[in-house]
Amino acid sequence: MQAEIIAVGTEILLGQITNTNSTHIAQGLAELGIDSYYQTVVGDNPVRLAKVIEIAAQRNDLVILSGGLGPTKDDLTKQTLAQYLNVPLVEDEAAMNVINDYFKTTGRTMTANNRIQALYPAGATPLTNHNGMAVGAFYQSPDSADFLLLPGPPREMTKMFEMEAKPKLQAAYGKQSQIYSRVLRFFGIGESKLVTELQTLIDDQQAVTIAPYAKTNEVTLRLSAQADSKASAQQALNTVETQIKAKVGTYFYGYGDDNSLAKVVIKTMIDRQLSITAAESLTAGEFQSTIGGVPGVSAIFPGGFVTYANAAKHQLVNVPQATIDQAGVVSEATAIAMADGARAQLHTDTALSFTGVAGPDELEGQPAGTVWIGLAYPEQPTTAYLYHFAGDRQKIRERSVMAGLDLLRHALDGKTTSEK
Amino acid sequence: MQAEIIAVGTEILLGQITNTNSTHIAQGLAELGIDSYYQTVVGDNPVRLAKVIEIAAQRNDLVILSGGLGPTKDDLTKQTLAQYLNVPLVEDEAAMNVINDYFKTTGRTMTANNRIQALYPAGATPLTNHNGMAVGAFYQSPDSADFLLLPGPPREMTKMFEMEAKPKLQAAYGKQSQIYSRVLRFFGIGESKLVTELQTLIDDQQAVTIAPYAKTNEVTLRLSAQADSKASAQQALNTVETQIKAKVGTYFYGYGDDNSLAKVVIKTMIDRQLSITAAESLTAGEFQSTIGGVPGVSAIFPGGFVTYANAAKHQLVNVPQATIDQAGVVSEATAIAMADGARAQLHTDTALSFTGVAGPDELEGQPAGTVWIGLAYPEQPTTAYLYHFAGDRQKIRERSVMAGLDLLRHALDGKTTSEK
Repeated sequence: MQAEIIAVGTEILLGQITNTNSTHIAQGLAELGIDSYYQTVVGDNPVRLAKVIEIAAQRNDLVILSGGLGPTKDDLTKQTLAQYLNVPLVEDEAAMNVINDYFKTTGRTMTANNRIQALYPAGATPLTNHNGMAVGAFYQSPDSADFLLLPGPPREMTKMFEMEAKPKLQAAYGKQSQIYSRVLRFFGIGESKLVTELQTLIDDQQAVTIAPYAKTNEVTLRLSAQADSKASAQQALNTVETQIKAKVGTYFYGYGDDNSLAKVVIKTMIDRQLSITAAESLTAGEFQSTIGGVPGVSAIFPGGFVTYANAAKHQLVNVPQATIDQAGVVSEATAIAMADGARAQLHTDTALSFTGVAGPDELEGQPAGTVWIGLAYPEQPTTAYLYHFAGDRQKIRERSVMAGLDLLRHALDGKTTSEK
Repeated sequence: MQAEIIAVGTEILLGQITNTNSTHIAQGLAELGIDSYYQTVVGDNPVRLAKVIEIAAQRNDLVILSGGLGPTKDDLTKQTLAQYLNVPLVEDEAAMNVINDYFKTTGRTMTANNRIQALYPAGATPLTNHNGMAVGAFYQSPDSADFLLLPGPPREMTKMFEMEAKPKLQAAYGKQSQIYSRVLRFFGIGESKLVTELQTLIDDQQAVTIAPYAKTNEVTLRLSAQADSKASAQQALNTVETQIKAKVGTYFYGYGDDNSLAKVVIKTMIDRQLSITAAESLTAGEFQSTIGGVPGVSAIFPGGFVTYANAAKHQLVNVPQATIDQAGVVSEATAIAMADGARAQLHTDTALSFTGVAGPDELEGQPAGTVWIGLAYPEQPTTAYLYHFAGDRQKIRERSVMAGLDLLRHALDGKTTSEK
């Protein structure tokens, strides 16, 4: 069983976007045990697209096309494939309903080209698009290669691939033995350091493969075991997980692809009925926005403060002017006063504060990346922690938010932070 | 002049790394005005590599190979290419000196396979590796395609491509005429509607090409003109821009790849010394965090409020309890009271408020996606606008922030909003 991935899009050929779709699909093929020896990129040109489809169909059992399913004139992937297969395009009623509903709900006018998004090659199984309107398709052919059609926008592609395509590929080509995966998530350790710490485990991997991926501000490890039963796979995964945690367990915070440090922390706080607020200077609301993204957070989060200017720190969360004057605005004392003041204002159990230099310019003689984070937590003296983050303005703000969540996680675990 | 990029590496086929090398090289080709219609990825396998070299050489004038120049057994790119070209590999003395020096300096023992890194196909021009030991090569052939050999590690590849390869490509193939581009940014119109409105312009494009790209919550158009001088390109671009703006100018907000609605709005407000605050419920600080990302915003943004719970709306920005009880928390009256209250608290010129249903559950009988945004603006009655956004919790929050920025943009332009 051998598959080729073809990404369709002139913007990839012009270097305007990076082809992350092929990376994601390639990972999925590796998990399914489907070999992949070639990847191709071609532009929104039906003649050249037809040529690469022909080459790929000759040298593979399955050809996966992503991109070019949208409503514009450039989008010609399914038309070109239907011509190659010599089948008409037919309308998927479910997809058409979604398109109609969208235009009804938003009150926008539907243009005729939007209907194209509900079409797929006759004889294929249509695949639902959970994050968009263009329907996908899985076409199994007795006498040529099979084809999988996926949309181009990564949000649409990844969800369709994971939820709709993978189970069908598994059913069509899956081996008796299956791949079982588990994702471990780490914060506070870089990818290269994680790999160095686990080098012997990675080198010795046999029953379980260990694949590290660097994400924004965190690292995940995907453990995969091929086994005849879920039970025997779980056993193998458990053994390796224990070995990994013995080395880098302090940085581990949770499981799963659809997870985050914010979700883990907020879920724990909801379970324990610990309420939270924040006073944010350099992060300007990004911490609160991040926890606001977790469903159910309203049970423990009444609101909070963006105290960007010094006057706002004084007015909104009662930081004494003398503290700012004497210790400086980017200081341990100001961070502590902000956390205490925010907690007192909204009568919460906990509070975080962020004060620092987002850059690009320095502040009070302190370089960009200098950040104090204060934590007010039950039955503990309010404490502030000093960080020095590298990167641009946005990176420094994101890292501050992640560090604040990590402080909370360690407090919830009854530990002080491991990471500075 | 047409070129194909071939990235060599099994780790790309397994999805362990993303193929950013092809992105970088593709950008360079676009700048040089060299067309590129195909990209290929192949593993560290000499048989399959020979096949893709043959296909690429047949359909292109130049084939660029990156990866597989290192010292390990897997690295076979230049050996395979030399075989295809039927030339021997020869040693680059300068590269060999660097390798010898490295082992002398570090006191490590040089193994025989390290010498391989100094080899290149006879007849080619060797290219210096400024960040590593493997030499590159540019091979010009009178009777087949030309070949460019680059290393795989991105640090080595990008430096060699920029410093060594690009000048040689420019000298070999450079045109008198160059490509000049301009990016126009739009908010409040979908990609398909934008394309429909501009269909005749796009179909008739000759001197200037118009390429639409859907970004998160906005659409950009890249206009490109090939011309002998910057002045004549600008003239052609100006003409098409005027034609585009005549049709969809109301949605246009700015220029450039590195731009955003937030940057344009905040820059205008800084220029006019108009200060701003916000009271955010469902967005939970995301609006303030977004404007906080713009350097220089501190001149006009003292801070603001996250008023997630009803009690916080009352306590922090003085929304009368009666307003919430009678009109509901997701209502015009509450949105107006929040904007007015926030502005009064921090004595700013303007204020935005956000109250709505982020979902997944409905609230007060109103479905997820129902959002009221209030705008308090100088010399205008404070007004609230009703939106119905589609999508999940995060999308609804993001779209609310963008809609708030768009309200501000139109107010700054002296207009009311065009988009609901």
